[in-house]
Amino acid sequence: MLIPAAVDLYVGNPDWQIFAISAFSVAGLALATIFATQAPPPPPSSRLAFLVVNALWLTLSLVGALPLYMSSLDISFIEALFEGVSGATTTGSTVLVGLDDLPPGLLLWRSILQWMGGVGVIALGVFILPYLNIGGFSFFRIESSDIEDRPFARFSTFSVSILMIYTALTALCALFYVMGGMSVFDAVNHSMTTLATAGFSTHDASFGHFADQPMLLWTAIVFMIIGGLPFTVLVLFAFRGQTEAARDPQITLFLCLIAGAAFAVTIWLIVYQDWSFFRALTHALFNIVSIITTTGYASDDYTSWGPFAVVLFFAATWLGGCSGSTSGGTKPYRFLILWQLLRTGLQRLLFPKIVTPIRYGGRLVSTDMQAAVLLFVSTSLVLWIVLSVALAALGLDLVTALSGSLTALMNVGPAFGPIIGPAGNFGALSDGALLVLIFGMLLGRLEILTVLVLFSPLFWRR
Amino acid sequence: MLIPAAVDLYVGNPDWQIFAISAFSVAGLALATIFATQAPPPPPSSRLAFLVVNALWLTLSLVGALPLYMSSLDISFIEALFEGVSGATTTGSTVLVGLDDLPPGLLLWRSILQWMGGVGVIALGVFILPYLNIGGFSFFRIESSDIEDRPFARFSTFSVSILMIYTALTALCALFYVMGGMSVFDAVNHSMTTLATAGFSTHDASFGHFADQPMLLWTAIVFMIIGGLPFTVLVLFAFRGQTEAARDPQITLFLCLIAGAAFAVTIWLIVYQDWSFFRALTHALFNIVSIITTTGYASDDYTSWGPFAVVLFFAATWLGGCSGSTSGGTKPYRFLILWQLLRTGLQRLLFPKIVTPIRYGGRLVSTDMQAAVLLFVSTSLVLWIVLSVALAALGLDLVTALSGSLTALMNVGPAFGPIIGPAGNFGALSDGALLVLIFGMLLGRLEILTVLVLFSPLFWRR
Repeated sequence: MLIPAAVDLYVGNPDWQIFAISAFSVAGLALATIFATQAPPPPPSSRLAFLVVNALWLTLSLVGALPLYMSSLDISFIEALFEGVSGATTTGSTVLVGLDDLPPGLLLWRSILQWMGGVGVIALGVFILPYLNIGGFSFFRIESSDIEDRPFARFSTFSVSILMIYTALTALCALFYVMGGMSVFDAVNHSMTTLATAGFSTHDASFGHFADQPMLLWTAIVFMIIGGLPFTVLVLFAFRGQTEAARDPQITLFLCLIAGAAFAVTIWLIVYQDWSFFRALTHALFNIVSIITTTGYASDDYTSWGPFAVVLFFAATWLGGCSGSTSGGTKPYRFLILWQLLRTGLQRLLFPKIVTPIRYGGRLVSTDMQAAVLLFVSTSLVLWIVLSVALAALGLDLVTALSGSLTALMNVGPAFGPIIGPAGNFGALSDGALLVLIFGMLLGRLEILTVLVLFSPLFWRR
Repeated sequence: MLIPAAVDLYVGNPDWQIFAISAFSVAGLALATIFATQAPPPPPSSRLAFLVVNALWLTLSLVGALPLYMSSLDISFIEALFEGVSGATTTGSTVLVGLDDLPPGLLLWRSILQWMGGVGVIALGVFILPYLNIGGFSFFRIESSDIEDRPFARFSTFSVSILMIYTALTALCALFYVMGGMSVFDAVNHSMTTLATAGFSTHDASFGHFADQPMLLWTAIVFMIIGGLPFTVLVLFAFRGQTEAARDPQITLFLCLIAGAAFAVTIWLIVYQDWSFFRALTHALFNIVSIITTTGYASDDYTSWGPFAVVLFFAATWLGGCSGSTSGGTKPYRFLILWQLLRTGLQRLLFPKIVTPIRYGGRLVSTDMQAAVLLFVSTSLVLWIVLSVALAALGLDLVTALSGSLTALMNVGPAFGPIIGPAGNFGALSDGALLVLIFGMLLGRLEILTVLVLFSPLFWRR
């Protein structure tokens, strides 16, 4: 908060005081919390882990909302909270209009919030979820042999390595953006929300502001894809020169899904919309990568590209990036396990005594993990329908309700339809609808079950 | 086919010849098949069962399409096939316009087709699927103690009992329709498509033709609900006076879902559309029951009832009726098992060593059945998305593609949007889109995996 305060002070914007007050209030509360919790820590347990993870994201969201609510922006508390949650969960949906004229401090704050949310979700996916068996995540437990010899003597050095890679890639992305013609301010903001596959922009038109600068679009494409890769793989490659970890099947499927969808949309744009090959490829790839990595930038209103593109983008909203990345969504590794379960399920219908082990990248997937994957997919479907009905009860139409709840659960950002489509804005929604979406974004970011566990009576039993 | 031939001959419609020719062609082919398969039958196996089930529905669909294609109707072969599949699968989507002026033989043929499809799916759900462990159906295996003492000495007498109940209920329904003011012809047709929860009507306006005759709407409500109940329970009640089978939890949930959704829509219609209580209750209940039982009649264009009603009807399209009924859809028993899996899944996240058995109606649900339920739900989700993308590639818009593939997979009938909504008609779709929907209806009717198993290479191995 002191960074946006400094920036606002530098450009002479009175909002700097808001940031300064927020900073000291939060620091005060944090100190108070530290002093209030001087007792010896409780023994580690899954319960504690779930409580901490939920509390962390809720705190980051509230802290993120605080300066927005107190600032010169004329928004309600729920709107500020929505923006804070959309930042902390790296969703990228926004209620703010007139971004181009917003004070730089506020814009920077939104980007920093998403950047922190991005590194938070990498840590969640690498260090926490694998030990809680959420939705089959336990498959990605780092084996101690992977990191316990040098140069990663311990988990803490491994996490420092992740932070270093994340920061270095952000700086590199900003550099490319500046070389491509962005202002330094825009480059800093967009590089943070690109690596976090988050999607806040400093322009109402999102990347449409740079639609005729292909160098910028291609830079974004590359760094969004990097943001959707497992950061453990990036670290092992950067610090050890290891490449075998990159043979993770989820990476292959992730890249194939992007290539396939972008190819289909490119052909469609060339044939039905008479675009040139390069323009079609650039914009198809940019927007498909943006949706599949759950970033949520838009270089154009792709909902005006015709029915096939629309439904393909709707379907792409489901997919998501790799585990251990900054992406949300259902995630390709779950589709890989689901595919194998279907194949062996069909075999067992024919020959009930067949036992075919489910493998992922050569390693066995335990029945516990299989069940966790299936439960995750089924639960996300039911929750999607339930949240859609809730949104409709608050007055939203079919497309807005279905796509709004989906984009929130998958942490993508833009939805469909005239209100909250890529050319629209979430500011038009009622506070009630925003609350439903806030719940959806938190659910999606913490892989659904991490939040639902709070509703289990067992969680609260002494 | 001889029945519609007789009717058309009686009213002097030349289409009677078509039905007569079709009847003798089919009889000839059937005889040829009987003589060609005089070899001793192959040993019973799941493979054989899958082949027979798929072949049966495909044959019934083709036989159903034959007279429609050759008749005075001006429709393509694909359109005739669509109508045949929609009949045999008891979906109820239609490509025909001008039903009110159609020759009675054709109308009767469509109704008979659905009536046969209805009893076929009861037999499928009672005698076949439980032995193939499709989507958790094996839970509903009839225990021999249930039927092997009198008056059901054998399976064959049990199936005769089912047919008797089905016929008696159809006759009773027709009687009530006539008493409520329907013509005898309309009553016969609608009673057949009501009990089969199928949805073909003799009027373009469907039950909207009788919108101001509440007695007819309430008759339909009662018999659609009966059609959505497990027929084993109806048989045990009618022939043995047993009521304990009616304590099946799927029945409770089925009725609760209907009551809850109808209540919400009633309130919505009273508050936002200023309808009177009785009118709101009648039409809300009629259309909700029609969708949840996967019948597909409409007494009104409920997509004009406002956003909440629309999304609720969309969500209701998922639900479906009981196993062993004539309904399609995801089915309440799967939601009950899913709910328990979620609850115990959350408990195990907190205390990994907890072992909580999953029960359904007091009986244990094996882990195989649990996995089968989860696989069914996940697979139906993926197929829904894939079929939607296919429909969009053929030019359909988002709402038409998403709701069209859903209504086909769930065997409901009407979809959403201006083209194929309850006030629309599937005749406006291209042959390609109809083919996708034909595939979807067959998938849905045979509980998805029964069809997919044909795509397993193992199925075709010698």
